[in-house]
Amino acid sequence: MIKKGKLAGFPFLFYISLFLVLEGFFVVMELLLSHRSVRKYLAKDIDGDVLNEILECGIRASNTGNMQLYSIIVTRDSNKKELLAPFHFNQPMVKNAPLILTICFDINRFSKWCFLNNTKTDFSNLLWLLTGAVDASILSQNICVAAENKKLGICYLGTVLYNAPEISEILNLPSGVIPITSITMGYPDQVPDKTDRLPLNSVIHFEEYDDYSDDRIYTAYSEKENLESSKQFIQENSKENLAQVYAEVRYKSADNQFFSGKLLKMLVDQGFAFE
Amino acid sequence: MIKKGKLAGFPFLFYISLFLVLEGFFVVMELLLSHRSVRKYLAKDIDGDVLNEILECGIRASNTGNMQLYSIIVTRDSNKKELLAPFHFNQPMVKNAPLILTICFDINRFSKWCFLNNTKTDFSNLLWLLTGAVDASILSQNICVAAENKKLGICYLGTVLYNAPEISEILNLPSGVIPITSITMGYPDQVPDKTDRLPLNSVIHFEEYDDYSDDRIYTAYSEKENLESSKQFIQENSKENLAQVYAEVRYKSADNQFFSGKLLKMLVDQGFAFE
Repeated sequence: MIKKGKLAGFPFLFYISLFLVLEGFFVVMELLLSHRSVRKYLAKDIDGDVLNEILECGIRASNTGNMQLYSIIVTRDSNKKELLAPFHFNQPMVKNAPLILTICFDINRFSKWCFLNNTKTDFSNLLWLLTGAVDASILSQNICVAAENKKLGICYLGTVLYNAPEISEILNLPSGVIPITSITMGYPDQVPDKTDRLPLNSVIHFEEYDDYSDDRIYTAYSEKENLESSKQFIQENSKENLAQVYAEVRYKSADNQFFSGKLLKMLVDQGFAFE
Repeated sequence: MIKKGKLAGFPFLFYISLFLVLEGFFVVMELLLSHRSVRKYLAKDIDGDVLNEILECGIRASNTGNMQLYSIIVTRDSNKKELLAPFHFNQPMVKNAPLILTICFDINRFSKWCFLNNTKTDFSNLLWLLTGAVDASILSQNICVAAENKKLGICYLGTVLYNAPEISEILNLPSGVIPITSITMGYPDQVPDKTDRLPLNSVIHFEEYDDYSDDRIYTAYSEKENLESSKQFIQENSKENLAQVYAEVRYKSADNQFFSGKLLKMLVDQGFAFE
């Protein structure tokens, strides 16, 4: 296609410039847009230096007051993975992944620093738990983007919040260190299809929240409802529609309340105020 | 430095291949590592198509059960910025930025979809508030990475959680839509210095949380404590050390508790369970 003789005549720096301009527009967007969660990994370890580079990208992310109220627990040991697996509801990637990162809100380190400096403050409340969750997640996403850039696959494990007390015990987390999210990581042994998303305009509001009419809801969800995978999902669960699968099978009220109560009790036991 | 005559002799495809290999390793890492929060912006609007591309990258991020329990409120109107500014404690970038995004945990849309499908579930609890905060933040960070890739500058506003009731009113958020974080965005009118970070090894733990000895705390914080900016900070606030500035000026217990109480009340009024 490309005539070597002709194009090779351009100077080297022209090509560099061309690519430096193009990369800025394409490479990063393409990386973000091509994300899929990877749940099957090759039996290939992640080099320590590669992990360090990835985690350095993580901690460069913005964080509240630059206090870095977070800690990262690295799990490589297969015994630990065995122990963690049931509390991630035995999702196979927990044992299969070479690496699991558990990202925690950490007020323990900061409090110790304050104590050594003859002062203290109180972050044991809802405001700071949410602030910490935001910071831990921003950090996590930088880690995931950097990892995918290194041709690694990742999958978030939301289950860490369901069983935070048990996972905290396995990871020996002291009071004031709350697991927020976990990430499995490894070289992909699958290329999953991209999952669907609601149309962008159905999650955006300009200037003010434009509350949803019935019609707008139908429009927003129609593509998702009509996917083959959704129809299969409905049939497998013997439900009438996709919303019922979500609300009555995957995320039942009774489960939501049970696991929330467990998390709340753990936090109250650690002195968090919810009144 | 580069001898044109010699290097231009290589075929075009060689340069392409070389760059495609190199970009994968450098471009994205460099983008993440070079992050700084930008608080001064040029008076130049962000094109609607550019914003759309950025937001598309946002919603490609992982999210719990692919339910997309979030909404994004776009603020461009200067009257709205005027109204928002005091509740972001009059940080100048709120009025100065061409664009503010407020990223919300949204169970309103999903509940309406469930209602139309003759079902319901209950996400009004701590577990789902945290899950929603994680998802909203992962989305936010993808937005920030994509924006920085487009040569835009961003700054997170943690203040959205301090004054969530007032900000919700200005943005007309209905019950079940909780602002989690805000981002100001615009073309940079400054190149701030990179801020410091604790040494990476002081926020990482292998296999189990390795609780901090006094020595490890001193080591972790020594570089930060010895920065010129920290010394100035201590002097300006007439404190003995940096920890006291954080604990007694910037993030006082009384303030933390006051603003947390306000947030909690708003959530309880909306039917969130904290018991």
